[in-house]
Amino acid sequence: MYGKFLVEGDKAVRELLHSSFKIDAIYGLSDWISIHSSPHITVHMVSENELLQLSTHDKPDQVIAIADIPLQDENAIVGQELYIACDQLNDPGNAGTIIRIADWFGIKTVIFSAGSVDVYNPKVVSAAKGSLFRVKVIYEDLKTLFNNNKELAVIGAAMDGENIYQTKLPAIGILLIGNEANGISDDLYSFLSQKISIPSYGHAESLNAGVATGIIISEWKRQNS
Amino acid sequence: MYGKFLVEGDKAVRELLHSSFKIDAIYGLSDWISIHSSPHITVHMVSENELLQLSTHDKPDQVIAIADIPLQDENAIVGQELYIACDQLNDPGNAGTIIRIADWFGIKTVIFSAGSVDVYNPKVVSAAKGSLFRVKVIYEDLKTLFNNNKELAVIGAAMDGENIYQTKLPAIGILLIGNEANGISDDLYSFLSQKISIPSYGHAESLNAGVATGIIISEWKRQNS
Repeated sequence: MYGKFLVEGDKAVRELLHSSFKIDAIYGLSDWISIHSSPHITVHMVSENELLQLSTHDKPDQVIAIADIPLQDENAIVGQELYIACDQLNDPGNAGTIIRIADWFGIKTVIFSAGSVDVYNPKVVSAAKGSLFRVKVIYEDLKTLFNNNKELAVIGAAMDGENIYQTKLPAIGILLIGNEANGISDDLYSFLSQKISIPSYGHAESLNAGVATGIIISEWKRQNS
Repeated sequence: MYGKFLVEGDKAVRELLHSSFKIDAIYGLSDWISIHSSPHITVHMVSENELLQLSTHDKPDQVIAIADIPLQDENAIVGQELYIACDQLNDPGNAGTIIRIADWFGIKTVIFSAGSVDVYNPKVVSAAKGSLFRVKVIYEDLKTLFNNNKELAVIGAAMDGENIYQTKLPAIGILLIGNEANGISDDLYSFLSQKISIPSYGHAESLNAGVATGIIISEWKRQNS
């Protein structure tokens, strides 16, 4: 299914229907179809067994849609905003969580490096809880991105970074999130205009990438709202 | 394996070895054993195939240990601290993430309601990244907990809660995290002494339970450190 992706479950499909994404087809149980009508989209009635065969889950939830992966918006980076960029982010759950965080905090665009997880993989779609239909996602070489947007501050977490509660975060810029195991790549480290850290009061070596993103963006918004 | 749990992978097993948990046995590849010695614990040499049979992963990482589930500390709630309590938390990833957050922020005890996920399930152990060996976990009926600790403020997220950036969070108390789909149970809602919310600037309906916990605890620590 080149250029297409699966959207699974009642809630996600309903959010998809309210988005600008192009939908190819919807496969639903008769009960689902009797409640939800979509005049412009073909809805195929399927049995529970057929739904199970289409699904990546053991217990599919009523309906599955096939949608087009949107074309990448080459003009998504317009300056004057706050962005999240992910460097080699591998875990589908983290990618979905970060897109959901962006949606919550009104961040319009999330950039993933080419080596990151495919956000149209069903696990990311599921973890993003519909936010994938509202947040712009682009794949871009991050060196190129930083070189082309030198007016934007690049902020990243580092062991020797300043305490986020005591440092001033700029109103706009790019938050760079590193790989789950290795952090920010050596060749991107030199682009950081500000190194920050979330103070630790205990013994964990690190925080989950999604949680760290949430805490930093929350503090960012607190300071600038 | 009643009363036992699996700890998988090099890093987690090394953290287990540095903990006070009782270890029954360790099963490692010869390469792992040649580097790591544990004078007081039986280390069995296994082949890659044998490791794969013991593991819950497709690509097990060098070593697996079997440890005893610790007895519940009935005196874990001593007042004068900050606690996290989870009401019917279902997702193993969220449970592990919350235990890791507790460890990062120096919270010594996380309480789970009886209907929550089993934290000794391999997915939670994996998501907790060793923090399970440092943070005290107890299972408790939350109504009983709140009734027995009336001196502790109970803080929870609610739709109509006060903006966390603008409200004063107390130095000590219990942060109550609700179920992923249904939030805080009706019969616990009346115990909330303070309702808070993380301001939304976008369109996501909610944040992931682990991320919300991280944001609230971070703000809590910022205000009280």
